[in-house]
Amino acid sequence: MSEPSEPASPRTTVRRGTNRAEYSPEVMRAILDAGVIAHVGVQTDEGPLVLPMAYGRTDDELLLHGAVANSLLRAGEGVDICATVTIVDGLVVARTPFHNSMNYRSVVVRGTAHKIEDAQDKLDALRIITVHVANVWDHGRPPSEIDVTKTLVLRMSLDEMSAKVRATDPVDEPDDMTGPWWAGLVPLNHAWGEPKPADDLAPGIAIPAAVAALGGTTAHR
Amino acid sequence: MSEPSEPASPRTTVRRGTNRAEYSPEVMRAILDAGVIAHVGVQTDEGPLVLPMAYGRTDDELLLHGAVANSLLRAGEGVDICATVTIVDGLVVARTPFHNSMNYRSVVVRGTAHKIEDAQDKLDALRIITVHVANVWDHGRPPSEIDVTKTLVLRMSLDEMSAKVRATDPVDEPDDMTGPWWAGLVPLNHAWGEPKPADDLAPGIAIPAAVAALGGTTAHR
Repeated sequence: MSEPSEPASPRTTVRRGTNRAEYSPEVMRAILDAGVIAHVGVQTDEGPLVLPMAYGRTDDELLLHGAVANSLLRAGEGVDICATVTIVDGLVVARTPFHNSMNYRSVVVRGTAHKIEDAQDKLDALRIITVHVANVWDHGRPPSEIDVTKTLVLRMSLDEMSAKVRATDPVDEPDDMTGPWWAGLVPLNHAWGEPKPADDLAPGIAIPAAVAALGGTTAHR
Repeated sequence: MSEPSEPASPRTTVRRGTNRAEYSPEVMRAILDAGVIAHVGVQTDEGPLVLPMAYGRTDDELLLHGAVANSLLRAGEGVDICATVTIVDGLVVARTPFHNSMNYRSVVVRGTAHKIEDAQDKLDALRIITVHVANVWDHGRPPSEIDVTKTLVLRMSLDEMSAKVRATDPVDEPDDMTGPWWAGLVPLNHAWGEPKPADDLAPGIAIPAAVAALGGTTAHR
């Protein structure tokens, strides 16, 4: 990891809105922990492609999972990607629409994605990705060898990442401050609802504690 | 627009999870209308880059706005991009973690982004982008000529888009259905909170009706 408050590389140096740049590993990791999906970009023969993927992280790697992993790897093993996680925290209503904005937290990770080949490493990665959103790994039927073989999981280094955070009131022109226009924030709240059993769930099966505990809590914290 | 239920082009044909593909213009437009931000991917000299941007749409174009538009255009005018809008509707807890998933709605738009040059077209586009989330365009100080000149807005055709929607219970292996494991959904609810006036708002300024109306409503509908 780079030192706090220093970009890891030229390509992870925030160029626009540099006052909102965050390079502290703690801040960047907290955003990754708070997010639920990543938007992953890859260059294909037919132009850029951006797809949503489930993810998790270790101290030094981002782990990506999804049926779409195949699309990312069509270009071959060791493919250059960008994984971006954004949480929208609210709408910023300024005194003029030109200064309207959003409050958000966003992390951009750039690097090379590799397939995880080793079965145990892959199992560990799948567990981390599953537990990232809620600890529902232990309650079900454990993955079989075939499950693990069939699943494609990618890893990429967290060495090159940067973040942007906006979490403030509107910033208006000095001349507009005396005008008759309202300005403020409208928070966007994300919350897990009450769990709903599957229609085909047999009677008498208890809800796992980790799932029950999600209901009613704030997501993206 | 293509006919409903037919992909617009080979590169917008969903290849993974084809049972979840949606090519109906009505469904795709409804997802674009329900989203708040797009994740926009572009190929740079330093590899793929994915950045969050505010957006809006007309009947046939996606309109993109953000300080980051400059990063997208560094490759020159008429740059190939991919804009993806994803709404996560909940967690799908299966009888085995291998079948865990998320319910979501996602649209992928591929095409060439162009700068909007004409001042009136740009003003119209900024209005559409602003109104996309909440109609807060009319309440403030109208944009000046300088505001409009300084702002970069991109347009891209909606001709090449596809969608994926997952909105169902877990799909488990037949052999797992008689097991003792819970399965179901945990909804992820997105709601606008109560608007909060800016700390420096002068007393006596009423909140615009469109902003007041947002508070407490469900986002991403």
